[in-house]
Amino acid sequence: MRIEIINTGSELLLGTTLNTHGAWMGMELFKLGLRVQRQITVPDGEAINSAMAESMERSDVVIVTGGLGPTSDDITREAAAEVLGVELITDEAALRSIEAFFADRNREMAEDNKKQALNPVGGDILPNPNGTAPGIYTPPRMSGDRLCALFLLPGPPSEMRPMFENEVEPRLRSLAGTNEDHHIQVLRFTGVGESDFHAKLDQELVSIPNLEVGYCARTREVDLRLIGAKASIEQAGQLAINTFPDMCFSQNGESLEEIVVQLLQKQGKTISIAESCTGGLIANRITNVAGASQVFTHGFVSYSNLAKQQLLNVNNATLERHGAVSEATAIEMAEGALANAEADIAISVTGIAGPSGGSEEKPVGTVWIGIATAGSSAAVKKFAPYGRDIFKQAASQDALNLARRSLEQAMA
Amino acid sequence: MRIEIINTGSELLLGTTLNTHGAWMGMELFKLGLRVQRQITVPDGEAINSAMAESMERSDVVIVTGGLGPTSDDITREAAAEVLGVELITDEAALRSIEAFFADRNREMAEDNKKQALNPVGGDILPNPNGTAPGIYTPPRMSGDRLCALFLLPGPPSEMRPMFENEVEPRLRSLAGTNEDHHIQVLRFTGVGESDFHAKLDQELVSIPNLEVGYCARTREVDLRLIGAKASIEQAGQLAINTFPDMCFSQNGESLEEIVVQLLQKQGKTISIAESCTGGLIANRITNVAGASQVFTHGFVSYSNLAKQQLLNVNNATLERHGAVSEATAIEMAEGALANAEADIAISVTGIAGPSGGSEEKPVGTVWIGIATAGSSAAVKKFAPYGRDIFKQAASQDALNLARRSLEQAMA
Repeated sequence: MRIEIINTGSELLLGTTLNTHGAWMGMELFKLGLRVQRQITVPDGEAINSAMAESMERSDVVIVTGGLGPTSDDITREAAAEVLGVELITDEAALRSIEAFFADRNREMAEDNKKQALNPVGGDILPNPNGTAPGIYTPPRMSGDRLCALFLLPGPPSEMRPMFENEVEPRLRSLAGTNEDHHIQVLRFTGVGESDFHAKLDQELVSIPNLEVGYCARTREVDLRLIGAKASIEQAGQLAINTFPDMCFSQNGESLEEIVVQLLQKQGKTISIAESCTGGLIANRITNVAGASQVFTHGFVSYSNLAKQQLLNVNNATLERHGAVSEATAIEMAEGALANAEADIAISVTGIAGPSGGSEEKPVGTVWIGIATAGSSAAVKKFAPYGRDIFKQAASQDALNLARRSLEQAMA
Repeated sequence: MRIEIINTGSELLLGTTLNTHGAWMGMELFKLGLRVQRQITVPDGEAINSAMAESMERSDVVIVTGGLGPTSDDITREAAAEVLGVELITDEAALRSIEAFFADRNREMAEDNKKQALNPVGGDILPNPNGTAPGIYTPPRMSGDRLCALFLLPGPPSEMRPMFENEVEPRLRSLAGTNEDHHIQVLRFTGVGESDFHAKLDQELVSIPNLEVGYCARTREVDLRLIGAKASIEQAGQLAINTFPDMCFSQNGESLEEIVVQLLQKQGKTISIAESCTGGLIANRITNVAGASQVFTHGFVSYSNLAKQQLLNVNNATLERHGAVSEATAIEMAEGALANAEADIAISVTGIAGPSGGSEEKPVGTVWIGIATAGSSAAVKKFAPYGRDIFKQAASQDALNLARRSLEQAMA
């Protein structure tokens, strides 16, 4: 099935907004065993017409994002009607949904928003619970000398992504037919780099029949994507886990924070978090998981030395002797977080994010991760000499992984 | 000048690598007063041929990235020669550079690397000090019924970007001529929706000469992008600020957290943050700003009722009478955060992120934002009935904006 994606939006071409639609959709389609053959970005306005017409002549499915807003340069609906050679008519149900969206929020609906209920004849409205622009789907119809289906989706990722999952994917599945022996598994690893996979695993993986292998490297994480026959996936997955023992934290695509919350729930334990350089990122990641409130009650962002003393009972002498970024401080932070939250496990992070604050002995990127449980406490040193954002992400990943390892050992 | 960009690389369409070339080049070209009319991504291999031929017939300049490596699916050079209708010949100087690249690093050069010195007849080699793949430039020649210049650049950003700045930009400048009166300004607003801009401002903005206007809507934020003559931008910016007083938080593209940190620095104040439903996101946003440690010392993530009492001195009676998600609790949280951090200003957030925990009286999405300073405290109710991620982002935006307004009033 040949799929093309068209993203409209001048901001994507001006560089003020990074186009994440292509990568996100590529990943989602890949899970269905589908590939994107071409992705095209055009500015707001008339450029969409020719791009859509060209793509439809080449493709079985064309997915367009953006240009469904209420303003004069939002003309994706009009362009689709022109390319399809049909009229636009108001969909009464869609109009009522848009009116309800404004009424629910006690906002007045502008006259311009009415055009968002326009639908090319023969199109299906795709509901948008997260915004005013409904999507549109037109089933396969002749375009040039081939049948092509068309999806029009809103531009904001917060509206597009749920609509893609709920409305587009089921339709693509049925358009593509089912492939019984098409499975996918994503194993996620931390503590090992993509180059380690290439060096130690690639050759063996390639020799497994009916298998396609892909990697995705993130900060302190490699996702191994296995696609193909069930037995092949199982063989490959086992091989990867045996090659990198303890480094595979998830066999079903869960994030590290989801795994930590699941382990805590299973063991009926609570976690406490003491953060200096990560500044709340770890607590934020944990609380992104629905149900976090069962396992997480207290988070401490102790950005200053005084806060480390006041919130976490870190000794002034420890700070003076070893400094805030040290093994001793990391351990005392974790112990303080454990005691003050009456938690079962506590993790702590203290490091130098930069750009300033580094020294020869403790360069920017140095970070100590502490862990404490009722019986014991410890700290490990890590190094992440990257920009502020990646530094924080790397440190949060290392801390969550320390918690995971400790919780898994407690079960073993 | 009509410019199109073609990015080749299967990883860009599989979603394993985010395509940052488009946004980066868009920004660079914009500084020269140039726009990208279309950006196209194709997989490795033959898809490049037709994409390149089509773009060259539509454009004055086509810039291709990727496919200049040594492997069999790197065929951008071959495709260019075919589209241009010329032969490929080895450029001896380029070959010597590639050999030197390997020699300098004590690495053996593979036979395959020799093909990286191939150049379509009439092309100029663009040196690549950061990798083995030289770029190629072919000056304007007839393509269809127009003249089109072609740039071939390596895919890795660390090689492409310096080559773009050093080799591509000077050539584009001379192809395009110069435009002295080309400026850009991005104003960022919160507390007002994109539809409000359309309803109240669009018509007046359109009447300003030499101006182009664009919007980008994010969670609880609208960016207004003004492009054109300096006087027109100033007039439009003033108009927007006057139309939505107090809602423009940034006139130079800064994020809301950057503005809050700047205001605190200017006033020599510190902020304390008490978070329930946002779970550390606000502290995380503040600590993403370099220099945050001057203005932020204590963050409290009080996810449970007990934590609200222990960390923030919220009264048990308040929690029992009004509930955790209430005006009274939000105010006591902010007051506790202010006192316990000895800060100059404190903000608090307590709400129901969902998916569970809502009631008829307090549905999922309900959130109270508190603020406290030495003299006064208050709380406002907000509603963000979206998914967990967007709910947290919206609540963090509302809380940071409350801090901004308070700090701006303190200066007035």
